[in-house]
Amino acid sequence: MNERLSGPRSEVSNHFYELKKMEKMLFEELVQQRQSDRKYDESREVEEDKLMKCIEAARLSPSANNAQPWKFVAVCDPELRSQVGRAAADMGMNKFCITAPLIVALVLEKQGLMSTVGSVLKNKEYRLIDVGIAATHFCLQATALGLGTCMVGWFDEKKVKKLLGIPRSKRIPLLITVGYPDNPQHDKKRKALNEMFSRDKY
Amino acid sequence: MNERLSGPRSEVSNHFYELKKMEKMLFEELVQQRQSDRKYDESREVEEDKLMKCIEAARLSPSANNAQPWKFVAVCDPELRSQVGRAAADMGMNKFCITAPLIVALVLEKQGLMSTVGSVLKNKEYRLIDVGIAATHFCLQATALGLGTCMVGWFDEKKVKKLLGIPRSKRIPLLITVGYPDNPQHDKKRKALNEMFSRDKY
Repeated sequence: MNERLSGPRSEVSNHFYELKKMEKMLFEELVQQRQSDRKYDESREVEEDKLMKCIEAARLSPSANNAQPWKFVAVCDPELRSQVGRAAADMGMNKFCITAPLIVALVLEKQGLMSTVGSVLKNKEYRLIDVGIAATHFCLQATALGLGTCMVGWFDEKKVKKLLGIPRSKRIPLLITVGYPDNPQHDKKRKALNEMFSRDKY
Repeated sequence: MNERLSGPRSEVSNHFYELKKMEKMLFEELVQQRQSDRKYDESREVEEDKLMKCIEAARLSPSANNAQPWKFVAVCDPELRSQVGRAAADMGMNKFCITAPLIVALVLEKQGLMSTVGSVLKNKEYRLIDVGIAATHFCLQATALGLGTCMVGWFDEKKVKKLLGIPRSKRIPLLITVGYPDNPQHDKKRKALNEMFSRDKY
């Protein structure tokens, strides 16, 4: 499964690499290939059309009552991006964000009356589930296009809001870093099946 | 894009249908094809190997600090399933759950010290985002296998916990219904791009 090359790649091999990644594949292959990439080829920008494909995949996500309680803010300006990256490298964590080729902030939006009432009655913040769904669509689409991503939940939210002009009343559940991965495919460490699955009884 | 047949299908056409659905496809095609299906062919069970492929896709999902704070309980016993379905058809909503060929309950599990501390410090319930991610992996895998799904967030949680022997202290953020769809592909109604996307500034 390790089809990623590590180290520098020539333009020709990059071209092949991308062609390969844009091939059709089984969903289980895509799931295997997706990983949290924390090292990117800093010489390569994320192409505009690829970014927009990821946004489109997120736009089409399902959500509770079709509320779509999200806004995606892509930080494209290099100086701003590096500032947001520094705000993401909060308390010594996630330093890789500083040099990520692209950062996308996921802002939580209002969900409409029906979902709000439902959230209160059922004591369940449906919007965070929805954000997880949309972020997953984004990241899997990125993987399918040969890009690497990392969902980042720990960052200086106040600072990011200020940098992007996001109202203080809003929340940012996630940042997503995007770029061409410059690290090898690694094995996924996960719980065994019997620790996360059962039948008929808990 | 409408490749689904509505109405009854012969065994031969079912066979073709499945083969078609198991072909490799572009992720954007998969996203288009996934929809919240609320009507299933009640004469067709979900095959064991397909269920396990969906569980495997969920098992490989990313999560904050790799906490994997979820357990999937597949309700396979017909009588129990119908009882859970009735608990899901809460207050007149989601009546389709009563006859869904398969229901999977997604239970929220502990996330470990690091994520717990992070959740408190950042006032952010990472686990609900994680559950959204895992549910998305499950449902997209199901779509890729020709199945239809619907994530259900509104149901009588207390009753479902009792039926499945889930401790009262646990939460069930979602149920997922699964089956062979018996409704046509419908258009997705979504916000326009400029309502959910911006660049550099909110």
